[in-house]
Amino acid sequence: MARKLKLGIPKGSLQESTFDMMRRAGFDIHASPRGLSPTVDDPELEIVQFRAQEMSRYVEDGVVDAGLTGKDWIVENGSDVVEVADFVYAKAKLVPVRWVLAVPQESSILKAEDLEGGIIATELVNTTRKYFADRGINVKVEFSWGATEAKARLLDGIVDVTETGASLRANGLRIVETLLESTTHFIANKASWNDPWMREKIENLTLLLRGALSAREKVGLKMNVPRDKLEKVTSLLPAEKSPTVSNLLDSDWVALEVILPEVQERELVPQLKRAGATGIIVYPLNKVIP
Amino acid sequence: MARKLKLGIPKGSLQESTFDMMRRAGFDIHASPRGLSPTVDDPELEIVQFRAQEMSRYVEDGVVDAGLTGKDWIVENGSDVVEVADFVYAKAKLVPVRWVLAVPQESSILKAEDLEGGIIATELVNTTRKYFADRGINVKVEFSWGATEAKARLLDGIVDVTETGASLRANGLRIVETLLESTTHFIANKASWNDPWMREKIENLTLLLRGALSAREKVGLKMNVPRDKLEKVTSLLPAEKSPTVSNLLDSDWVALEVILPEVQERELVPQLKRAGATGIIVYPLNKVIP
Amino acid sequence: MARKLKLGIPKGSLQESTFDMMRRAGFDIHASPRGLSPTVDDPELEIVQFRAQEMSRYVEDGVVDAGLTGKDWIVENGSDVVEVADFVYAKAKLVPVRWVLAVPQESSILKAEDLEGGIIATELVNTTRKYFADRGINVKVEFSWGATEAKARLLDGIVDVTETGASLRANGLRIVETLLESTTHFIANKASWNDPWMREKIENLTLLLRGALSAREKVGLKMNVPRDKLEKVTSLLPAEKSPTVSNLLDSDWVALEVILPEVQERELVPQLKRAGATGIIVYPLNKVIP
Amino acid sequence: MARKLKLGIPKGSLQESTFDMMRRAGFDIHASPRGLSPTVDDPELEIVQFRAQEMSRYVEDGVVDAGLTGKDWIVENGSDVVEVADFVYAKAKLVPVRWVLAVPQESSILKAEDLEGGIIATELVNTTRKYFADRGINVKVEFSWGATEAKARLLDGIVDVTETGASLRANGLRIVETLLESTTHFIANKASWNDPWMREKIENLTLLLRGALSAREKVGLKMNVPRDKLEKVTSLLPAEKSPTVSNLLDSDWVALEVILPEVQERELVPQLKRAGATGIIVYPLNKVIP
Amino acid sequence: MARKLKLGIPKGSLQESTFDMMRRAGFDIHASPRGLSPTVDDPELEIVQFRAQEMSRYVEDGVVDAGLTGKDWIVENGSDVVEVADFVYAKAKLVPVRWVLAVPQESSILKAEDLEGGIIATELVNTTRKYFADRGINVKVEFSWGATEAKARLLDGIVDVTETGASLRANGLRIVETLLESTTHFIANKASWNDPWMREKIENLTLLLRGALSAREKVGLKMNVPRDKLEKVTSLLPAEKSPTVSNLLDSDWVALEVILPEVQERELVPQLKRAGATGIIVYPLNKVIP
Amino acid sequence: MARKLKLGIPKGSLQESTFDMMRRAGFDIHASPRGLSPTVDDPELEIVQFRAQEMSRYVEDGVVDAGLTGKDWIVENGSDVVEVADFVYAKAKLVPVRWVLAVPQESSILKAEDLEGGIIATELVNTTRKYFADRGINVKVEFSWGATEAKARLLDGIVDVTETGASLRANGLRIVETLLESTTHFIANKASWNDPWMREKIENLTLLLRGALSAREKVGLKMNVPRDKLEKVTSLLPAEKSPTVSNLLDSDWVALEVILPEVQERELVPQLKRAGATGIIVYPLNKVIP
Repeated sequence: MARKLKLGIPKGSLQESTFDMMRRAGFDIHASPRGLSPTVDDPELEIVQFRAQEMSRYVEDGVVDAGLTGKDWIVENGSDVVEVADFVYAKAKLVPVRWVLAVPQESSILKAEDLEGGIIATELVNTTRKYFADRGINVKVEFSWGATEAKARLLDGIVDVTETGASLRANGLRIVETLLESTTHFIANKASWNDPWMREKIENLTLLLRGALSAREKVGLKMNVPRDKLEKVTSLLPAEKSPTVSNLLDSDWVALEVILPEVQERELVPQLKRAGATGIIVYPLNKVIP
Repeated sequence: MARKLKLGIPKGSLQESTFDMMRRAGFDIHASPRGLSPTVDDPELEIVQFRAQEMSRYVEDGVVDAGLTGKDWIVENGSDVVEVADFVYAKAKLVPVRWVLAVPQESSILKAEDLEGGIIATELVNTTRKYFADRGINVKVEFSWGATEAKARLLDGIVDVTETGASLRANGLRIVETLLESTTHFIANKASWNDPWMREKIENLTLLLRGALSAREKVGLKMNVPRDKLEKVTSLLPAEKSPTVSNLLDSDWVALEVILPEVQERELVPQLKRAGATGIIVYPLNKVIP
Repeated sequence: MARKLKLGIPKGSLQESTFDMMRRAGFDIHASPRGLSPTVDDPELEIVQFRAQEMSRYVEDGVVDAGLTGKDWIVENGSDVVEVADFVYAKAKLVPVRWVLAVPQESSILKAEDLEGGIIATELVNTTRKYFADRGINVKVEFSWGATEAKARLLDGIVDVTETGASLRANGLRIVETLLESTTHFIANKASWNDPWMREKIENLTLLLRGALSAREKVGLKMNVPRDKLEKVTSLLPAEKSPTVSNLLDSDWVALEVILPEVQERELVPQLKRAGATGIIVYPLNKVIP
Repeated sequence: MARKLKLGIPKGSLQESTFDMMRRAGFDIHASPRGLSPTVDDPELEIVQFRAQEMSRYVEDGVVDAGLTGKDWIVENGSDVVEVADFVYAKAKLVPVRWVLAVPQESSILKAEDLEGGIIATELVNTTRKYFADRGINVKVEFSWGATEAKARLLDGIVDVTETGASLRANGLRIVETLLESTTHFIANKASWNDPWMREKIENLTLLLRGALSAREKVGLKMNVPRDKLEKVTSLLPAEKSPTVSNLLDSDWVALEVILPEVQERELVPQLKRAGATGIIVYPLNKVIP
Repeated sequence: MARKLKLGIPKGSLQESTFDMMRRAGFDIHASPRGLSPTVDDPELEIVQFRAQEMSRYVEDGVVDAGLTGKDWIVENGSDVVEVADFVYAKAKLVPVRWVLAVPQESSILKAEDLEGGIIATELVNTTRKYFADRGINVKVEFSWGATEAKARLLDGIVDVTETGASLRANGLRIVETLLESTTHFIANKASWNDPWMREKIENLTLLLRGALSAREKVGLKMNVPRDKLEKVTSLLPAEKSPTVSNLLDSDWVALEVILPEVQERELVPQLKRAGATGIIVYPLNKVIP
Repeated sequence: MARKLKLGIPKGSLQESTFDMMRRAGFDIHASPRGLSPTVDDPELEIVQFRAQEMSRYVEDGVVDAGLTGKDWIVENGSDVVEVADFVYAKAKLVPVRWVLAVPQESSILKAEDLEGGIIATELVNTTRKYFADRGINVKVEFSWGATEAKARLLDGIVDVTETGASLRANGLRIVETLLESTTHFIANKASWNDPWMREKIENLTLLLRGALSAREKVGLKMNVPRDKLEKVTSLLPAEKSPTVSNLLDSDWVALEVILPEVQERELVPQLKRAGATGIIVYPLNKVIP
């Protein structure tokens, strides 16, 4: 019978983006109704779901061999695991999240020290306590069961997670300090990592996930270029990109193909057109492995 | 300016039944959009919402003067508060909830001792740890961030809350032992309780809530009875119920009115009709104060 | 151990109105998630759910002892069962439903005979076939798996169920003829009906359901009347209603109470006020047993 | 054929509270799917739905004979109609709504005059323009197609409707001035009002709607009182309430019944109990006509 | 600090298709919860949302520099703006929308003139008034706050927007005349258009949006062709399409690639296969710039 | 006027996957609101929707010329139609569905024979009756109107459809035997098939649907390879895949392109990289025609 790697996938806010990344990496993964485990079309994988908050504990315990979770919760839990890779793919955008100290707009608190003697609610209790203890500030940190933002006005402040700060601002809160930045990490159980079959499986997963991630904000660009304008067109491309140039039947023309971040493509297209490229098309990608 | 009692109402699964009970007690209470506090038509009350799990802490801290929450979470938090009254009104029915140790149907575990050396997930970590420690059983208890049932198969067992056990059975789980029974408690901050104005306000609330609760499964029954059959009709009523009998204009008849549990009413109605009562009507109640 | 009556309750469009009627009859009945049977607070009842369409078959087979379903489906299935009572409580209003032959507004079909040689879709295949055969009209009747209205334009016509015809009209259809009227029936298995315990249980249920149904469109009316205007006020009430009149402490006044259809109450209230009644209140009812 | 009164009922935010009030007034009214007119069980009524904003125009035009709408929109439209009655039943609570000038919390605008030369968005264009013109303030008033609050930061301010101001505050806005208070009005077309049949129908509707409205925050209270404590118990009741007192079979006791605002009942119940009343019950009401 | 172009994106029915087009154009744009502005990954853009109906006013006022909206609302508002480009991408399909005069199926009105003296409801009041005034027809045009279709039976007719007419027909309405056709326009504020930096930014946006739009109903087609069948295969392609032909390592074969409307591709694939092409694949495109 | 092929598309659980396949095949197909027929951008097609269960009857009757449905329902209805092609695209995955006999986990029934004398519910009545009759087993087969799984505990067993068995297991059921496997079939009316125009249209549809289906689990792979490593890289590819190799301007390199099942791609990518391929990209496909 095939060996299996037990892989922990986070539930909740990270679930959809993680499923999406697994699919781009080439796995047909589906959530199951009624709390069953997700199914995946790789007989060597078994998917198990935990909340991102609890993942590192179960990786450390060996309940799963490897898992995806946030750096924040690895730190908070103080888990002893192998950090195989770190990815940047928080919910909507490819940016890290931050845990910040926030207070009502109209509060007189301007820095962490002003909280001396106060009460704070947060989901990240240990990290928050350590942060204030390290600075010799005496605060009471209460664990918050959700809807943390609403407590900022009832207590003295909160420590909450944010990407852009927009939600905090919309709730009339002001960010005082940043306690921790966090990205998604791929972690492994120590014993599993020392098993050669497991390690190779984990490394293959890492390669495919990186390839998929790298493709997420890239596109393929293809165009025809008169041979005598090839140099000019090529000079417009970012230095580190080497385009693939192929001969066409009509020997006055070549075809040029290049992979670019979507954000650069927007700017290049008008310039390429002006430099003589024709029949420019842009197409979507599943995976990019350099 | 009027003094105000800050009253904590639980969010989440208990919210709707608590709002409903407050309304039956005579308060016009409304949830507000966007995380604002609920509004209530009593200028001496200020409603604050917390999760049932965190309520007793904020009562102890004095963030609210009094609050409704489960006995389970008062115990779990080890909060030092005044327990003013206890009510039975879990989500759908008027029964206490239980925290039980549950394992998969097919597990070999038959009693708590069989879990020696195992891992358990629960939201009720302290209570669970104490339960096993008191019995000298060595288990690792992990805090579960929700969807606890789904973990029973991944670990060795769970400690989860249930009313009837139906949901556990539907997930293929078996109850091994009951750790704790819990009903809804009305608790107060110690300092608030020692303030005479506060205490009277809290006691009034208790009376109104009890009256509303008592009405929830009762109905009013009204009928006309020929004077010469009054004794026979009255003899059918439960001994402890004294009906209100009033004279009618037509002196051959009396009107009889009695408050009964709905469950008795179902059985009495056919008997009352046979004994000579006519024009029987059954009507709903808001509050019953004996 | 208590004996149990297995009672079939219809799923689907009649479920909510049936649950509501059971609750008004005094039973605390709740749907269960995940396809489990509904729970009820009477240890002598076991609730089983089937579609209204299949109920009479399982009553006949003895899978349940009694059940609620439409007369239409008893006829369609040709089931040999005892018809204990018939109730009128279709989905939204207290009216019977009709099975009608419907065609597009612009169709040239004006009577059943015009369908000679045509194709009809319906859920009520046997009844429809018999209807046309009895009239010597040759049509092909296909069983429709739902969304019957949409087929009226694809084929030659449909036989579908309707309360007011509004949905058919909104779909641009025209009613040609009515094949069958149907109300809700309470039916019993023949062997169960011959068992005395079962029969008494079924008859008690019938009494309570009739009482609840009778209360649905009625209200209680209470008012104070000067003793010298009692006759005038009483003369305004419908002849068949005998009000309950009771003496008040103030012997110049009496209290008058009467149960009326809501639709009459609307018209009486202004007249009663003019005739001298004061303190008129209208209150809701759960059950009315004459 | 019966004559019919065409009655306009507002769509949108006032629809549910209006339907509810019609039902309490004794009419079985139901929304219809697919934009059809609502059905009602009174053959002399035809219900037509318009937005509250446009109702008064169609009453003036005679498209409907009478209608319910806000005073604000009668003013805004400058409609020439008969104002039959005014009711207070805005969405959730029985209070009038206000149209207010609002600006961002951090804006330097403190009074209407500070808006000189600015741009304002509102749904109530005419009233707003008049308000500023009357004060000699020069502003540009743009009609807003909804989501007005979000524009307060893009422009200089908004004029928006609010009940409690909570939603504005939650959006970080500050109220500068109140332009208009508004309650629900029952209006009639002038010609319809001069037709005796129409006028009587409209007046009957008014009576029933007032009775239902008056019952909305009231409850019935019933209790048994020892005859020798009747005076004491009665003295606790508000002076303007005359309770109905009836003789009981047991001549040492009387039954006392009174209709009270729910808000008073909360305070009276503990006092009544202390004064010797027993078997106190509180029950719901549909209608109260003094 | 980077300069920013304030770009207005319509809310409501056009929002999703506009966001989709912006994404295909290469911008990572996301709606924000709670009425905040959408975010976009271009530091030189600031997205602001208005309803399509009010966009042209705010472009004219300079609240935004440029915006997307329908020609209909530019005309209706009589806005003095620069019309930079016009796109065809109404909600579901790439067709213009029409504002039509519609009446109930059974109405006697057959042409605009038949409405003389009648009442019409519409959201497009000015345009409708002008249309009738230009023809010397005297009608009263009332502004409709939505649900316009439902008013066609209450008044004499409506002027409403439609793509295919299906929804009107489904509501039993008949189209009498078309008043205005409308497509999506890209408009700019006059001052912004005269600023060279702004104008270049607007022109770049136009190029990218056109490229994305052009790709929406096109696909890429790639196949291998024996060199001696190249002419035959090429002759099947539409004359105006010049395919890209490249040499393969195996010199007996060439690779051929062409961009085609999806609707042509369906018909060509079987013919290309018969002509000797093999390994035909069809792939999706993000953008096509000729 | 163009001739039209009437094409039946299944409603319900197969609708979304069928629409998706039609779109990948190149047709712009859209569901219409209110029960209207879906629209499609091919003037030679008219889409008509029936339930999969009834499709083969209406193909046989000639109400539609051709249709997509399951083999199971062709067998169940005993329809006399032309089976043009069979596709494998059940709801979520590309596998056939199975009709199985299922009983509760704890039932004593282990094989079909153990059901002798029992009652079974199923939607597939004829096929089930024949299956048991062929084996000489005497069972009562009742037609089930849906929610069949819930009946397995009320009766003796059910015959229900399943893909993976997961839903049955989650309901505590056990599969006893498989009665029938079924895939999606493309069927035609006999007369339509004998009409040359119709037949060619049906065959073209078949080709396009097959191409789209074949692309569903495939991806395109493109990479640059040093000319001296081409043989090594090529040897890694599955034998039956012949890659397209093209010359690059830089004559030391070639470009290699190949279409692979996504499931193979996952394993090949690391090997290809190690063998010297660079710039590997993976891209999505709409259609693959070999």
